[in-house]
Amino acid sequence: MNLQFLMPTRVVSGPDCVRKNAPVFSALGKRALIVTGARSAKENGSLADLEAAFSSVGVEWRLYDRVMSNPTIACAYEGAALAKSYGADFVAAIGGGSPMDAGKAIALLACQDISEENLFSGNYGKQVLPMAFIPTTAGTGSEVTQYSILTSDKAKTKLSIAAPLLFPTVSFLDARYTRSLSRVTTINTAVDAFSHLFEGMLSVRANPLTDLMAREGMLRILACGDRLLADSLTAEDRESLLYASTLGGMVIAQTGTTAVHAMGYSLTYFRHIDHGRANGLLLPAFFRFVEQKDPELAASVLSSLGWDCSGRADKFLVPLLGQRESIPDKELRQYASIAVKAGNIKNCRVILTEEEIYQMYRSSLK
Amino acid sequence: MNLQFLMPTRVVSGPDCVRKNAPVFSALGKRALIVTGARSAKENGSLADLEAAFSSVGVEWRLYDRVMSNPTIACAYEGAALAKSYGADFVAAIGGGSPMDAGKAIALLACQDISEENLFSGNYGKQVLPMAFIPTTAGTGSEVTQYSILTSDKAKTKLSIAAPLLFPTVSFLDARYTRSLSRVTTINTAVDAFSHLFEGMLSVRANPLTDLMAREGMLRILACGDRLLADSLTAEDRESLLYASTLGGMVIAQTGTTAVHAMGYSLTYFRHIDHGRANGLLLPAFFRFVEQKDPELAASVLSSLGWDCSGRADKFLVPLLGQRESIPDKELRQYASIAVKAGNIKNCRVILTEEEIYQMYRSSLK
Repeated sequence: MNLQFLMPTRVVSGPDCVRKNAPVFSALGKRALIVTGARSAKENGSLADLEAAFSSVGVEWRLYDRVMSNPTIACAYEGAALAKSYGADFVAAIGGGSPMDAGKAIALLACQDISEENLFSGNYGKQVLPMAFIPTTAGTGSEVTQYSILTSDKAKTKLSIAAPLLFPTVSFLDARYTRSLSRVTTINTAVDAFSHLFEGMLSVRANPLTDLMAREGMLRILACGDRLLADSLTAEDRESLLYASTLGGMVIAQTGTTAVHAMGYSLTYFRHIDHGRANGLLLPAFFRFVEQKDPELAASVLSSLGWDCSGRADKFLVPLLGQRESIPDKELRQYASIAVKAGNIKNCRVILTEEEIYQMYRSSLK
Repeated sequence: MNLQFLMPTRVVSGPDCVRKNAPVFSALGKRALIVTGARSAKENGSLADLEAAFSSVGVEWRLYDRVMSNPTIACAYEGAALAKSYGADFVAAIGGGSPMDAGKAIALLACQDISEENLFSGNYGKQVLPMAFIPTTAGTGSEVTQYSILTSDKAKTKLSIAAPLLFPTVSFLDARYTRSLSRVTTINTAVDAFSHLFEGMLSVRANPLTDLMAREGMLRILACGDRLLADSLTAEDRESLLYASTLGGMVIAQTGTTAVHAMGYSLTYFRHIDHGRANGLLLPAFFRFVEQKDPELAASVLSSLGWDCSGRADKFLVPLLGQRESIPDKELRQYASIAVKAGNIKNCRVILTEEEIYQMYRSSLK
């Protein structure tokens, strides 16, 4: 048994956990940079709760609300400059993966002078601002990972800063913030979480503890399948999905993601297909491929889900994702040439050639 | 869902993981105090592996091998004095719970001047030496907890230093070190781990993630039941038991222990009954009590283990523990009066009166 496990982020959850645990923030410092997107944190109540918590314990803050979907490298440097000029003691990020991923890079760049060329080198000093994160979607798992995924226009894809010092200090899970998400975003983020859990089981770094968490998370998402489709999630479902998505983060923090994510990035970069949706479009074809190439591995995933064949992935995902995008062959060839170079392709227990990647794109998006 | 989770210890496992990961030690410092008991670390190969790892990366060390079973407060101060005079950068503890628990207190007391009166206050500064721990029994879980359990002759029981800064920095799980344990020690430590997992499910702080880990750990120990009894554990069983015991540590790091541990301490203090055995002697009676007082809670534990009644705990534990000790009523009354004051009694979802504790001692040890 080769078990490797590291999860230094403190997780606190439950209704109103941000306000109930206000002293946790003052323990991190006196001044915070709050990192959000333009709107959702203001609309779902999370920003107001955080500001109330800060006020109650005398923490001052400055708001950086300019994080876009799939945040760019420039955004991380802009936020870090603000953190430095404000003298922030810690970073509080609220949102889906974008503000949290940007928040991690900001926390790093506020303490260390790292050039853009070296940003993805993996070689950093030890300094980083403490981080308090609040996920408001149930998908990314970024609240418990050491990854900051940024979009590089130079590489024409997403790149990952991965370093143990990027684990958030503490994350607050309050599923009430996910209630105002649209049906489509709720589905796409749940599918993203499902993909993290699924890919974790197929990673060369999977171990009994990550498999245990992956199975639990996937079963929880599957249990909500009908109500995800019907847009009738209960408050309990929302809690369960947020928990599942955090499990997904804990899993990929150990295992990394694999082929589905590697392939999905081009769909997002070139076609602006939502990240979770992109994974969901590709996952069934990938699972069929795994079943052909490594039937034993596929069987272990199937049995842990109580599934009888890889087609059950289609049955779960196809209705949720609806009409598929159609993308010309020539573009798919280009995406395959990018994906085959991605690090997470090699992280998979079933290794794909460029031709196989192309075929998988084709069967998913014809 | 009120989930709280903190597990900052990096876990590394697998055959020869100590020597294979030698650079992890040099990252902790140049000089180590190695904390062990008198013999087992020398006999099972763990000390030699650690010394080889240290030598290969230029770490110097001094050996403190005076930790006794159920280490005393005096032992912690003695070790800390040595760590200070030697100028240790970190503490490496090898052994069962005793050297690891002593190692945590040594790591704390080497950095902070804390009087014996304040040692269990819970109020400490932030300084502690980094810790690299190597469990050589599959029972304590101390390699992944924030607890240092020391014996107090003043309080006539065990007392716990509990603080997040006591989580070891890194722990190395190599089940080969457990192969030389006697049958009795193997059983007692497995029963200790089982008790941690079982008590975790009954804690007021249990949550879905701790329940998930607890179930997995208990099922793994139960799966080894026949071979524990027959003294015929395979190398794979040993790995599974060590993993289960680490899961037990991860669980009680969140939930704390409950009534069984509270009651077991007197059996160890006054009657020198091994810690794990003491828990195992008491657990079946406690489970029967839970079944009477909170049938729903008992049913959830039973169903997660695939058991039909609380009597299955007897069926598992009674053969393993053999002939029970007999203790006079008067002494049991005294133990009950001590146990009822223990903090972990209140940590249990089923609260016991002093009379109920006495009755439980009586039915377990008559």
